[in-house]
Amino acid sequence: MSENNGPKPWETKITEIKKDEIRIHGYRLDELMGKRSFSDMVFLMLKGQLPSENEGKMLDIMLVSCIDHGVTPPSALAALTSASTGAPYNGALAAGILSINEHHGGAIENSMRMLMELQVILDNSKDSGRDFSEAVNHLVSQYKDQNRRLPGFGHRIHKNDPRTAKLLDFADEFGLGNTWVRLLTGLKDGVQKSTGKDLPINVDGAIAALLLELGIAPELANSFFIMARVPGLVAHIHEEKTIQKPMRRIDPVNHIYTGTPERDIP
Amino acid sequence: MSENNGPKPWETKITEIKKDEIRIHGYRLDELMGKRSFSDMVFLMLKGQLPSENEGKMLDIMLVSCIDHGVTPPSALAALTSASTGAPYNGALAAGILSINEHHGGAIENSMRMLMELQVILDNSKDSGRDFSEAVNHLVSQYKDQNRRLPGFGHRIHKNDPRTAKLLDFADEFGLGNTWVRLLTGLKDGVQKSTGKDLPINVDGAIAALLLELGIAPELANSFFIMARVPGLVAHIHEEKTIQKPMRRIDPVNHIYTGTPERDIP
Amino acid sequence: MSENNGPKPWETKITEIKKDEIRIHGYRLDELMGKRSFSDMVFLMLKGQLPSENEGKMLDIMLVSCIDHGVTPPSALAALTSASTGAPYNGALAAGILSINEHHGGAIENSMRMLMELQVILDNSKDSGRDFSEAVNHLVSQYKDQNRRLPGFGHRIHKNDPRTAKLLDFADEFGLGNTWVRLLTGLKDGVQKSTGKDLPINVDGAIAALLLELGIAPELANSFFIMARVPGLVAHIHEEKTIQKPMRRIDPVNHIYTGTPERDIP
Amino acid sequence: MSENNGPKPWETKITEIKKDEIRIHGYRLDELMGKRSFSDMVFLMLKGQLPSENEGKMLDIMLVSCIDHGVTPPSALAALTSASTGAPYNGALAAGILSINEHHGGAIENSMRMLMELQVILDNSKDSGRDFSEAVNHLVSQYKDQNRRLPGFGHRIHKNDPRTAKLLDFADEFGLGNTWVRLLTGLKDGVQKSTGKDLPINVDGAIAALLLELGIAPELANSFFIMARVPGLVAHIHEEKTIQKPMRRIDPVNHIYTGTPERDIP
Repeated sequence: MSENNGPKPWETKITEIKKDEIRIHGYRLDELMGKRSFSDMVFLMLKGQLPSENEGKMLDIMLVSCIDHGVTPPSALAALTSASTGAPYNGALAAGILSINEHHGGAIENSMRMLMELQVILDNSKDSGRDFSEAVNHLVSQYKDQNRRLPGFGHRIHKNDPRTAKLLDFADEFGLGNTWVRLLTGLKDGVQKSTGKDLPINVDGAIAALLLELGIAPELANSFFIMARVPGLVAHIHEEKTIQKPMRRIDPVNHIYTGTPERDIP
Repeated sequence: MSENNGPKPWETKITEIKKDEIRIHGYRLDELMGKRSFSDMVFLMLKGQLPSENEGKMLDIMLVSCIDHGVTPPSALAALTSASTGAPYNGALAAGILSINEHHGGAIENSMRMLMELQVILDNSKDSGRDFSEAVNHLVSQYKDQNRRLPGFGHRIHKNDPRTAKLLDFADEFGLGNTWVRLLTGLKDGVQKSTGKDLPINVDGAIAALLLELGIAPELANSFFIMARVPGLVAHIHEEKTIQKPMRRIDPVNHIYTGTPERDIP
Repeated sequence: MSENNGPKPWETKITEIKKDEIRIHGYRLDELMGKRSFSDMVFLMLKGQLPSENEGKMLDIMLVSCIDHGVTPPSALAALTSASTGAPYNGALAAGILSINEHHGGAIENSMRMLMELQVILDNSKDSGRDFSEAVNHLVSQYKDQNRRLPGFGHRIHKNDPRTAKLLDFADEFGLGNTWVRLLTGLKDGVQKSTGKDLPINVDGAIAALLLELGIAPELANSFFIMARVPGLVAHIHEEKTIQKPMRRIDPVNHIYTGTPERDIP
Repeated sequence: MSENNGPKPWETKITEIKKDEIRIHGYRLDELMGKRSFSDMVFLMLKGQLPSENEGKMLDIMLVSCIDHGVTPPSALAALTSASTGAPYNGALAAGILSINEHHGGAIENSMRMLMELQVILDNSKDSGRDFSEAVNHLVSQYKDQNRRLPGFGHRIHKNDPRTAKLLDFADEFGLGNTWVRLLTGLKDGVQKSTGKDLPINVDGAIAALLLELGIAPELANSFFIMARVPGLVAHIHEEKTIQKPMRRIDPVNHIYTGTPERDIP
C-alpha cells in the first residue's frame, strides 16, 4: 500500500494485508485457523512467533486462570456502573479496562520487575560470594527501605489461592518452571526463613513468573491480564443490562451468587 | 457475602467467590484450568454452559479468524493515535475498543438480525405458500425500501475473503452449519438468482451465522468481536510505543509491512 | 493544507489553522480571548455563532448548575473506582464520561424530545380544534401506552431542586422562556390538572427547555452535560488520588461531607 | 448519609448533598448560579476556593485559549475515528480524551515542573552566589544531559503563537505574572543569551506559568487542558456524525476549512 511519490511509508511488522490474503508474522491467517488455538495466536501477537506445544498449553491455562473473579474487582464494578446508566457494551467494557491499573492487575508487572531485580542481585552476587539467601535479604530490605510491599504474595480474599497451585503444577509438568518459577518459590522460602512469615504466592505472582518463563515483556503484563479478563467483564455487563434495573445502587459488598449450583466438569 | 441486616443483597449468576474457592457457573476454576481451553471458557462466559467438543473448536476458529486485520481498521488507528501521545496500554486499548461500533465490527450483529428477519419471513411463509426465493426477494426489497445495504456481504479490500471459506468449511465439518449457515448461503444464492449480482459472503456474515448456530445472543456479537481483536490491538499498541516516535502523523494509507516474510506454519 | 495531486481534501467548518493564526468559525481566537467568556465559546462551538449577551449569561448559568452533584452519581462512582486502581486522570475521567448515558444525564435529551413531541401534537391540533390540555393528555397517554415515564420531572433526592427555580427565574429575566419553558411549565400544570399529581420539574427538564430556547440540537444534550460535569469529575478524581488508599471499597451510600462548612459567597 | 452501625463512612470535602440543598465547598450552588461564572466554578473545583476577580478573568482567558486547534491534534483525530464508526458522542469523546497525554497536552505539566526545578536551582543558588543566568545554564545542561527538550517552547505549526502573547499581556494587566511568568520569560531570554537560539514561548509554556501563578497543582494540568478542549472535541464529533460518511479514511493532512470566512467579533 505504498505510494511512489510523497513521504516514505511507515512500517509495521505485525500483519500483512493483500487482496484475499492476510498474513500474521508471515503465516496465512486462514491456514492458522483450525491448526492453532486462539491462545497460540495470543502468544504470536505478543511475541511475533508461535509457541511450542507446552508453551501454548501453559499460556492457555494462564488465560483461563484470570478470566473472572466475580463482581468485586474494581474493573467489574466500574463496568457495571457504566452499564447501569445505559452504556453500550463497548463503553462499559472500556470503563472496566480503564480500571485495570497499578493496583488492580498491575501486581503482575510489578512482580515481574521484582523477579528481574532479584536476578540482577544474584548475577552481581557471583563475584561477591553472596549466596541466594543473602540476595533475598538484600531485595527484602530494599523494598522495606522504599516502603513497598513485595508484590505477588497474599490476596485480600484467598489464603491458598487454588489457581496458584494449579499454575505452578502445570509449569512443572511442562518443564517451564526452571528459571523464574524457581526464583519465585526460592524467594518465598527465603522470606519465610529470614522473617518467619509464610507469604503465600498469589495468582499475580505465579502469572508473573510464567510470563517471564515465556519471554513476554513486563510492559505487556497488564494487557495480558486484560485479554484474559475481557470475557468475564462482558459476561457481567451482559447480566447487568439484561437483568438489573437502570441506575441501581451497586453495593460492592452486599451481593450473593444465585447461579448454577456446584457441579463437575463434563 | 450477604449481610443479615439491611437491604437485600443483589444477585449474580456468573461467578461464586469463597475463600480459596472460585466457581464459574458452578465449575471450579482451578479444575477448568488444563481441562478446558480459553475458547471453551469464552463460550462458558457468553452462554453459561460449556460447549460440546465441536462447538468449542468452532468458537476457537472464529476467535482466531478475527484476531487482527493490520493497521487500517479504525480500531487500530484510534489505538495507535492514542498510544502515540503516550497513553498507557489500557488507555490506548480503550480508545481502540471505543472505535468498534455499528460501522466497524457491527456488521456481525446486523447480519445476525438480518438472518433472524429472514427466518421470521420464512416461518410466516409456510401458511401463505411462499417459497424460499420469494422470502429472499421479500427481505431484499425490505432492505431496499429502507435504503439499507444487506450486511455480511462484500469487503472494502477482499473479494474472496480467505477467512470466510475456512469458517464455512469448518462449520460443515463440525455439523454446525445446518440452520443459519444454510440460510446465509441460501440468501447469497437467492440474491444472485434474482439480481444477477454475486455478493461474496464476508467474514462478518460467516461469523454472524456461526454465532447463531452456537446460540449466542446478537447483542453479544460486538463484544465477541472485541474479545477476538484485543490481542491484535495490544500488538499494534506495543509496536507503536516501542518503535515509533511520539506524536507522529499516522497516515491511514501510506504504510508497508516489513515483518517476517511469508512462511509456513510449523 | 490541501495537496494539488491526489484525493480531494475533506472539509471541516469549525476551525481554520494557519501559521500564527487560529480562527474559530471565522473569529480570531486571540481576539476572542478576554472579549468573550468560555461559556460564550461553548455556545460558539455548539452553534457556530456567538450568543447574544443574555444567551451567553443563560448558558453560563446552565453550565454552573450541572458542574457537580457529589459522589453518588454513577459518573463519579465509576471515575473514583478507576482512580482508586491507579488510573491516570484522563483514564478515570473517561470511565466517568462513559457512565453518562440514557439513564444518567440522558434525561435532558429525552426531555427535549418530549417537548418537541408535544409541540408537534399542538401544531397538529390547530386544525382539529384540540386545546392545550387535550394535547397534554394525548402526550401523557402516549407515554403511558409505551410504558415510559415522562422525563424531566422528579429527582431521586430533591423534591424542590434549588437549581430548577433558579434556572427558570433567569430564563424569565433574560426573556428566554417564552417558547419551550412555557411549554414545560404548561405540561407540568396540565399533568397536575388531569391527574392530580404534582410532578416537580427537575434540573434535567429545565436544562432541556433552555437548550431548546437556545436552539441547541437535542443530540448535543448529553455532551453539554458532560462539558459541565467534567470539572466536578476531575475534582473527585483528584481527591481520590491524593487522599484515599488504593483499591479501597467505595461504598455508594456510606460517606459524609467533611469539607468547608456552610459559607456565603463573597 | 452516614449509618450508625457498620463501617465508618468515607469522607469527601467537595460537595455536600442534602434534600433540596447542594453546597460546593460550602457555597450554595443555586446562589452561585448567576453570581459566579463557569470559569470561576472551574477554579473552585480545582482549588477549593473562589478566585479573585482577576484570577477568575485570567482562568477564563486560559480556558478560551485552549478550546480548539482544528482537526490535526491526535485527540481530534482519535475522536473523529471513533465517531466515524458510529460511536455515541461520549464514546468518541472518551477516545479523544484518552489521546491527551504526555506528548499532547502534557507539555503543560512538564513545563510547570521545569519552572519549579528552575526555582529550586535559584533557591539553592542564593548561598552559592550563582546568578540567574548561571541557574538557567544549569537547567539547560541538565535537560541536555538527560536528552530532553525544554518543554513550553516552539510549536509544530506556529512561530509566534498568537495565543501566547495574549496570555502574557493579560497576565501583566491582571498583575498575575510576577513570579512564574517572569521566570519563564527570564528562561527564554537566558537561553537566547547563552545559545543564541530564539525559542518562542508556546501556549503550553504560557499556560504552565499561569497555572503556577494561580496556585494550581501540576498534576491537574492535563485535566485543565481537557476541560478546555472538551467543547472543541464535541464540535468535531458532531460535525463527523452529521456530515461525513461512516468508516471514511480520515487523512490527518489533506483537509481544508470551508466554514464561515474571516469576520470580526461583534
